[in-house]
Amino acid sequence: MSKTNPGNFFEDYHVGQRLAHATPRTVTEGDRALYGALYPSRFALQSSDEFARACGLPQSPLDDLAAFHVVFGKTVPDISLNAVANLGYAEGRFLKPVYPGDTLSTHSEVIGVRENSNGKTGVVWVRSTGVNQDGETVIDYCRWVMVRKRDAAAPAPEPVVPELATAVPAGDLVIPEGLDFAGYDSSLAGSPHFWDDYQPGEKIDHVDGCMLEEAEHMMATRLWQNTAKVHFNPAARGGEPRLIYGGHIISMARALSFNGLGNAQLIAGINGGTHAAPCFAGDTVYAWSKVLEKAETPAPTVGALRLRLVAVKNTPAGAMALRGEDGKYAPGVVLDLDYWALMPRR
Amino acid sequence: MSKTNPGNFFEDYHVGQRLAHATPRTVTEGDRALYGALYPSRFALQSSDEFARACGLPQSPLDDLAAFHVVFGKTVPDISLNAVANLGYAEGRFLKPVYPGDTLSTHSEVIGVRENSNGKTGVVWVRSTGVNQDGETVIDYCRWVMVRKRDAAAPAPEPVVPELATAVPAGDLVIPEGLDFAGYDSSLAGSPHFWDDYQPGEKIDHVDGCMLEEAEHMMATRLWQNTAKVHFNPAARGGEPRLIYGGHIISMARALSFNGLGNAQLIAGINGGTHAAPCFAGDTVYAWSKVLEKAETPAPTVGALRLRLVAVKNTPAGAMALRGEDGKYAPGVVLDLDYWALMPRR
Amino acid sequence: MSKTNPGNFFEDYHVGQRLAHATPRTVTEGDRALYGALYPSRFALQSSDEFARACGLPQSPLDDLAAFHVVFGKTVPDISLNAVANLGYAEGRFLKPVYPGDTLSTHSEVIGVRENSNGKTGVVWVRSTGVNQDGETVIDYCRWVMVRKRDAAAPAPEPVVPELATAVPAGDLVIPEGLDFAGYDSSLAGSPHFWDDYQPGEKIDHVDGCMLEEAEHMMATRLWQNTAKVHFNPAARGGEPRLIYGGHIISMARALSFNGLGNAQLIAGINGGTHAAPCFAGDTVYAWSKVLEKAETPAPTVGALRLRLVAVKNTPAGAMALRGEDGKYAPGVVLDLDYWALMPRR
Repeated sequence: MSKTNPGNFFEDYHVGQRLAHATPRTVTEGDRALYGALYPSRFALQSSDEFARACGLPQSPLDDLAAFHVVFGKTVPDISLNAVANLGYAEGRFLKPVYPGDTLSTHSEVIGVRENSNGKTGVVWVRSTGVNQDGETVIDYCRWVMVRKRDAAAPAPEPVVPELATAVPAGDLVIPEGLDFAGYDSSLAGSPHFWDDYQPGEKIDHVDGCMLEEAEHMMATRLWQNTAKVHFNPAARGGEPRLIYGGHIISMARALSFNGLGNAQLIAGINGGTHAAPCFAGDTVYAWSKVLEKAETPAPTVGALRLRLVAVKNTPAGAMALRGEDGKYAPGVVLDLDYWALMPRR
Repeated sequence: MSKTNPGNFFEDYHVGQRLAHATPRTVTEGDRALYGALYPSRFALQSSDEFARACGLPQSPLDDLAAFHVVFGKTVPDISLNAVANLGYAEGRFLKPVYPGDTLSTHSEVIGVRENSNGKTGVVWVRSTGVNQDGETVIDYCRWVMVRKRDAAAPAPEPVVPELATAVPAGDLVIPEGLDFAGYDSSLAGSPHFWDDYQPGEKIDHVDGCMLEEAEHMMATRLWQNTAKVHFNPAARGGEPRLIYGGHIISMARALSFNGLGNAQLIAGINGGTHAAPCFAGDTVYAWSKVLEKAETPAPTVGALRLRLVAVKNTPAGAMALRGEDGKYAPGVVLDLDYWALMPRR
Repeated sequence: MSKTNPGNFFEDYHVGQRLAHATPRTVTEGDRALYGALYPSRFALQSSDEFARACGLPQSPLDDLAAFHVVFGKTVPDISLNAVANLGYAEGRFLKPVYPGDTLSTHSEVIGVRENSNGKTGVVWVRSTGVNQDGETVIDYCRWVMVRKRDAAAPAPEPVVPELATAVPAGDLVIPEGLDFAGYDSSLAGSPHFWDDYQPGEKIDHVDGCMLEEAEHMMATRLWQNTAKVHFNPAARGGEPRLIYGGHIISMARALSFNGLGNAQLIAGINGGTHAAPCFAGDTVYAWSKVLEKAETPAPTVGALRLRLVAVKNTPAGAMALRGEDGKYAPGVVLDLDYWALMPRR
């Protein structure tokens, strides 16, 4: 019997199946520093313990996306090793900030399966849950992937397609315990624009761009213990360039969004996301955002902003076109992410 | 109103103006490790808690230049976003070591403005001050930059040119509290040469060279939250290669200087500095030093050495020529830094 | 007198000589994070404090190879600055796990010298010992290098060739205090295969490959304060590409070996090792292992597995040929490492 991990195939999944993913991971100040070296992030809450304490948190939390990538990375060996494509995300919630010293592990439940008409692949829906050392859920989210069948002749399972919300309702967002923006110092934060200043429909060009490097995306991807071959080995892609982990683009775009959304301190939910096109080393990533919705939260000083964050490559974000006349993503669009951010109110 | 930061233009500055810079930053062991990964530094005081305690410090401090880069990085969005050139440094002092866990923030005061005769740009002088979580100043320094005018027709301000010392007087250097080299272990430090062994006029070729990489200089520059476009986006330079942050070269040269100045454990002052030519990925950096001056300090075991640190590229430092016959920097010279180091005395 | 380190030449070594190497180094969570960013390691014991505590350790130790590289790096300025070749390793033992906060230093003793018949070089054998802040030995090992003579006319010393064990006897391996795999969670560890499931002669193709980058190997090598010129400066190699530190390949291969040896949690000994061919940026590294021997240990839940770890480049490990018909290493083989790993027993 081979001792290497062959990954799961479509036939291996059934609705209700629970997967305990490997490699619990203690996150540290080292991860925080690396995150700051890899992405041009300047959100004050993730940068300064003093600033975080002034906002009611015990210390500066790890970037929400760093926590997400750690939780996500653990699912790769069981969910996406034989995946043809990562199809989508939904119902993502950030339930508790992650701090240096926390140990994260992830488990998933299969919530849907549907064989494709070609008989060679199927779609698998999972809900993945990241848990800390105290058993508290820090993040949960759904994603669905297209997975190869091991044996095309295997019978198709009864199709189960879960109903997933198109967006996390604002009322379901969780505000970190103690978070209070009453004494918020917008000068230290680097932006004078509060929740009150943003309006649905408003678009923001984040202006800055960053060229991607092989060493950087591989270091990031390994940091999250995501070892999908396509990110590291051109031979696994028939000699084509290494594919950059989609999460690297999410983090890059979110960091770039500081310029225009400098007070969008925390991510509270991920409503959906599409990796519209692949990225490679040498591409330059830009980003723009559109305000989709505003909501109050139970914390009177904290507002929620639903944002569309779009990353484009090799062309400034200036035009901010999401789709062409054919309804397809405009050329250069690489990421379309719909998320909830938490922001101070006046 | 655009919510992105347009930066300040020459007209936005006036003498006496105080700028509170954004993004306080807690430095950690992660920053220390990254500094060691990015630069070939081997100074024992920044490497070992035990060694630092044997020298009277509570633990190993962050490299002085790492602290400097953090303090400096915060000024970029307010001072140098529209800068044409970084013209100089003066009166830099390191007043207190920075330790993992410290939170740094920076404020600046405008101390001079003078419009250039072309009417399109002006020079702005600022004194920037890095402060820790207890409100103690850890670093202060002056720099001056050439900044674009927003509107060439705007009237020129009354010119104010500050008088800056050509060097920090030795008597103004601050010795870290408790620093005592009485039991200094030069074998562990890796160099048998004490303060007593260096003489003004002496030149030292640091021998080693290091080729620069895109991923490395970008990781370093992001780590200091310096997000000037030219370091990350070739398109911001008309398609030309990314310009390497001058501070990356300072740190590289200082780390290379270990080979010959292995006991120059701490930086106490920056007297002046010129980035004589730009560096790009693929350049190989070498360094040489010249001893300019020696001074005793109030601590009997600690001597101060004033050093000129010169970095050159793509040619070994062997010849150690600073200027050509025309008085201009010799070909290959990229950095000319005048600083004070603290060293054990016999 | 030049103040730069010229390194030692063959004539400078004599049997019984003790070398106290420079630059003690406090290792931290930052080193742990960087190790995880540089190598695709997923061994649970080095990833999770909780997992480590469940195995009887006080917290998650630094990767054994990270500790080895730190200990090794210190010897470079004194042992291998003028080395022509690193010839071999033997009798390596890992005597105590290294934890964040520990300060490591290294000393060596010369245990053999033999001039080569060409009169220009000689072989030097040293035993190097890594010690923590409490004076406890954490790692010791022998290596031998070929070193240039300063003066070909210098007389040859009496040859002394130490007798080194071909492998560390299983009975000499040290099990970390408290290590107990009784409650081992193989699901969290990511592999169902215990010590009991491996048999001598068994070969394992670790499947995955990783392309090497300049920025990554230089960051790794600097992190261990190994400043041998050939890793950083093409000019030091006559313009040829930078040579990748052999330890970078050892760490890469060991990390890749997770896929098939996911429960080989700790390294207890290094029996021997050969860097069969150099690696350069752009090479893709794969690895395979062969089980050489099994041994029980004094800890009833801990088994020892003696493994040959072979790294190959630019060709999948599939064929797993070590040597060609001519007895030489097969094309593509870059590393042949013989080590002892500790694994849970059923």
